[in-house]
Amino acid sequence: MREIADAADLSPANLYHYFRGKDEILFYCQDRTLDRLLASAAAARRTSREAGGRLAFVLSAHIRTVLDDVEGATAHLEVGALSPLLRDRIVRKRDRYERAVRRLVADGIASGEFIHVDPAIVTRAMLGALNWTVTWFRPEGATTTAEVGAAIAAFLVRGVSARPRPMRQPLRVVRPRTEEQEST
Amino acid sequence: MREIADAADLSPANLYHYFRGKDEILFYCQDRTLDRLLASAAAARRTSREAGGRLAFVLSAHIRTVLDDVEGATAHLEVGALSPLLRDRIVRKRDRYERAVRRLVADGIASGEFIHVDPAIVTRAMLGALNWTVTWFRPEGATTTAEVGAAIAAFLVRGVSARPRPMRQPLRVVRPRTEEQEST
Repeated sequence: MREIADAADLSPANLYHYFRGKDEILFYCQDRTLDRLLASAAAARRTSREAGGRLAFVLSAHIRTVLDDVEGATAHLEVGALSPLLRDRIVRKRDRYERAVRRLVADGIASGEFIHVDPAIVTRAMLGALNWTVTWFRPEGATTTAEVGAAIAAFLVRGVSARPRPMRQPLRVVRPRTEEQEST
Repeated sequence: MREIADAADLSPANLYHYFRGKDEILFYCQDRTLDRLLASAAAARRTSREAGGRLAFVLSAHIRTVLDDVEGATAHLEVGALSPLLRDRIVRKRDRYERAVRRLVADGIASGEFIHVDPAIVTRAMLGALNWTVTWFRPEGATTTAEVGAAIAAFLVRGVSARPRPMRQPLRVVRPRTEEQEST
């Protein structure tokens, strides 16, 4: 609770005024994060006529959500930490979001914009790439969350595109370190 | 310890004969998994002349390793559960593996087989997609670990390929459910 209170700039006593315990805070954070993810999935249809553009919008918004927000950073936590009742609510909402992303993938396959992949497997691979960012992204590094989001979204959309962008717009966002600089 | 003993088909007492506690077991599992991952990264150079083939070999082997092995299933656990000394050893070995995968990506960029992506970001996105499979893969499902591994590896390699395969070899491994069958 101390760490959460520090992150939220509240005293632990203040925090207990709003929440009965860690369980409720965890639920609140995961629920809010999922609301934002669902909102971006809903907004995606207005951003582009193409499945690739819509999907890139959702994937990059997902990374910004889990990396930028205090609440988002908890989204990768095992939902097993929640009580069964709260866990069920989160799992249902999470499944709803997963279906929304899968539908974007399936739409692209149906229109011929994407190749014939298994939408369920590929969607989960995409969500894994996004969620895993919380384990390695360092805010103090040279790359912003928006840059990481754009780079990963472009990479993932390219993985399903029937006619990927030509190389004239490189996806590189930071100068790659030469491998010689690194020890093995 | 009870769950681990069950999974390893040993009595808890027997387990304590080999390990001093959960910490040592966790280290042993993560260390063995990383040895296998490093071995597949080393073997990749003999599998193909092309960066795409080598990378696909390592990525699909990674999925089979984390999904098939008792030890592998623990590889996604937070290394924070380990004592500092053991954690450092795992983190160093994990970094070594990550550099090996990144080198395959960088090789493909250098040869022109891959587009100009940021090797560090894209490698971590790939590893995220792979590691995340342990959160959703169900052995009792219709799809095997080999099929999931091949599908995700092909998808991820396509994401960096300068000249992706034509659509004549579909990546689909299982029949996609029609979206109508699913509720929202």
